[in-house]
Amino acid sequence: VSHVTAKKREGDDVRVGDIGGEFALIKRLTESQQVTDPDVIIGVGDDCAVIRKDDDTCLLVTADMMVEDDHFSREWYMPEQVGGKLVESNVSDIVSMGGAPRHGIISMSLPAQTTLSFVDRLYDGIYASARRHGLTIIGGDTTRGDNLVLNLTLIGEVKRPLLRTRAMASEGDLICVTGTLGKSMGGLRMLMSGIEGDRSGHLEPRARTWEEAHAIAAHAHAMIDVSDGLASEVAHICEQSGTGAVIYRDRIPLAQAAVTAAEALYESAYDYALYGGEDFELVFTIPEREIDALRTEFDDFSIVGRMTARSEGTTLVSDGEREPLREGFDHFL
Amino acid sequence: VSHVTAKKREGDDVRVGDIGGEFALIKRLTESQQVTDPDVIIGVGDDCAVIRKDDDTCLLVTADMMVEDDHFSREWYMPEQVGGKLVESNVSDIVSMGGAPRHGIISMSLPAQTTLSFVDRLYDGIYASARRHGLTIIGGDTTRGDNLVLNLTLIGEVKRPLLRTRAMASEGDLICVTGTLGKSMGGLRMLMSGIEGDRSGHLEPRARTWEEAHAIAAHAHAMIDVSDGLASEVAHICEQSGTGAVIYRDRIPLAQAAVTAAEALYESAYDYALYGGEDFELVFTIPEREIDALRTEFDDFSIVGRMTARSEGTTLVSDGEREPLREGFDHFL
Repeated sequence: VSHVTAKKREGDDVRVGDIGGEFALIKRLTESQQVTDPDVIIGVGDDCAVIRKDDDTCLLVTADMMVEDDHFSREWYMPEQVGGKLVESNVSDIVSMGGAPRHGIISMSLPAQTTLSFVDRLYDGIYASARRHGLTIIGGDTTRGDNLVLNLTLIGEVKRPLLRTRAMASEGDLICVTGTLGKSMGGLRMLMSGIEGDRSGHLEPRARTWEEAHAIAAHAHAMIDVSDGLASEVAHICEQSGTGAVIYRDRIPLAQAAVTAAEALYESAYDYALYGGEDFELVFTIPEREIDALRTEFDDFSIVGRMTARSEGTTLVSDGEREPLREGFDHFL
Repeated sequence: VSHVTAKKREGDDVRVGDIGGEFALIKRLTESQQVTDPDVIIGVGDDCAVIRKDDDTCLLVTADMMVEDDHFSREWYMPEQVGGKLVESNVSDIVSMGGAPRHGIISMSLPAQTTLSFVDRLYDGIYASARRHGLTIIGGDTTRGDNLVLNLTLIGEVKRPLLRTRAMASEGDLICVTGTLGKSMGGLRMLMSGIEGDRSGHLEPRARTWEEAHAIAAHAHAMIDVSDGLASEVAHICEQSGTGAVIYRDRIPLAQAAVTAAEALYESAYDYALYGGEDFELVFTIPEREIDALRTEFDDFSIVGRMTARSEGTTLVSDGEREPLREGFDHFL
């Protein structure tokens, strides 16, 4: 407690931008709360909070706030795409823990000059994604503000045996990723540089469905979604599971949009996949013996690496060379 | 559906500020969703959404977004007060339906120049109110933005027999209000005009506790919290319950802060109570035969009127004169 107090005294001169990003800030703010509620199974620290619903079922709760000109620009995004991305990004957090999204509550701060047409189309996008994932918007709050700010809090459910967290990986597990990666960063680079190509991976990302997540969860150990890039997600799993990991760069499934943009810009599509984020694919670890059983139910995934002992750290193998797996890539920050 | 489409075509030239306020906008946006989930007991339209948890229990879900310089100014509010008001306003929505708050999830958009000290103190206020009401902050999202924007989504629980809505009033019920009214507007008028006095009703509003709400819910019919002023809350109950109402102005319990500010400014403290809002007291309707039983458990309330037949409309009786009960008072808008 005295440590916290000492830190607070310093806080007058320190800006939130100076303390090492969002994770450091959230960690600082949540440390000072004593959680005594036995129904809180997981609080801050995973894709969702996990609350006991009954003996068999947990509630999953997650929130995402999107700010205009920080998370999206109306120059690039149609209103439907803004609404869709808000829902898909939250759904991705629910399915990454093995759950199904159920109920969403939306808050909006709207500048007074916002047109009704914009808000109607925003909600068309919200409802289209909600229908796709079988969830219901149950309420919200609407207020005035200088900036367009959107928040969706999403509540989902998961049966206890299907609950998958970042902390459940074991040494020896294979590391797998669904679909292809780098499509969000590929699309963003196209938009930034005026390159022709498929930008939908950035403008219209799609979360995996809860049916797919259930199929994976029945065989996998740890699971997380790709919101900050494969490297960062693997690092989160290692940190929470107390393991190391090795990733084989050449096995990373690249999206065509990533390849197209990277070639045009003389960049690396693998970097888009490793450090780009917002692909909303699932990364999971799975015992080798479960792979065949999973394939009979769901096969849109690639094996990209293996969990190792913690002492081996996190390694990226590229063209036969081993290097430490960096978590971020300044070029994109 | 064609009606909705027709309205949307109009929307290109219409601004959200032009269509009659927040309620009209929310109504428009929620009409286009078909709710088929049988677990959604109440969606949009009451203080909280109500979701079936199990045979005996419902989840209550509510969200409030606060925008700097619209909902609060750092010139007047200490950071702890901003955090406290965020929690208390949401708790008030939960207890107004007879429930107990359980789990909160906070999203924040923070300007880069925000000091750590500000955020630490904001969370001190959040946690102080959370402890007071026995709820746990289970997560959230933190992002950058030009404006400070806060959103709290709060999940509570209520046993089915204690669930109280705006729609449960009966003709003949007495209309009661807890505590005193006008303290938020009184405090605001003091701040705006530099009048000395107790501004805590505006800066540090306190929601009623779930224990108090349980005691009331066991005897009351309809219940709602005072977030927009007594007149507006009574109108909501009448609309949802299909009744009329008569309010006796002289029986409205006035807060001392309302009297002090109104006297200094030659305004009406009753207007503060009727049209001011954010007092976070509870308005409930109750059969006359239940009043004595309630008083043995909870007695900090006043009887201010009676529910009537719908055909009688909503009436305010002042100094023996009857007039239609207005819902708002332009002076404060």
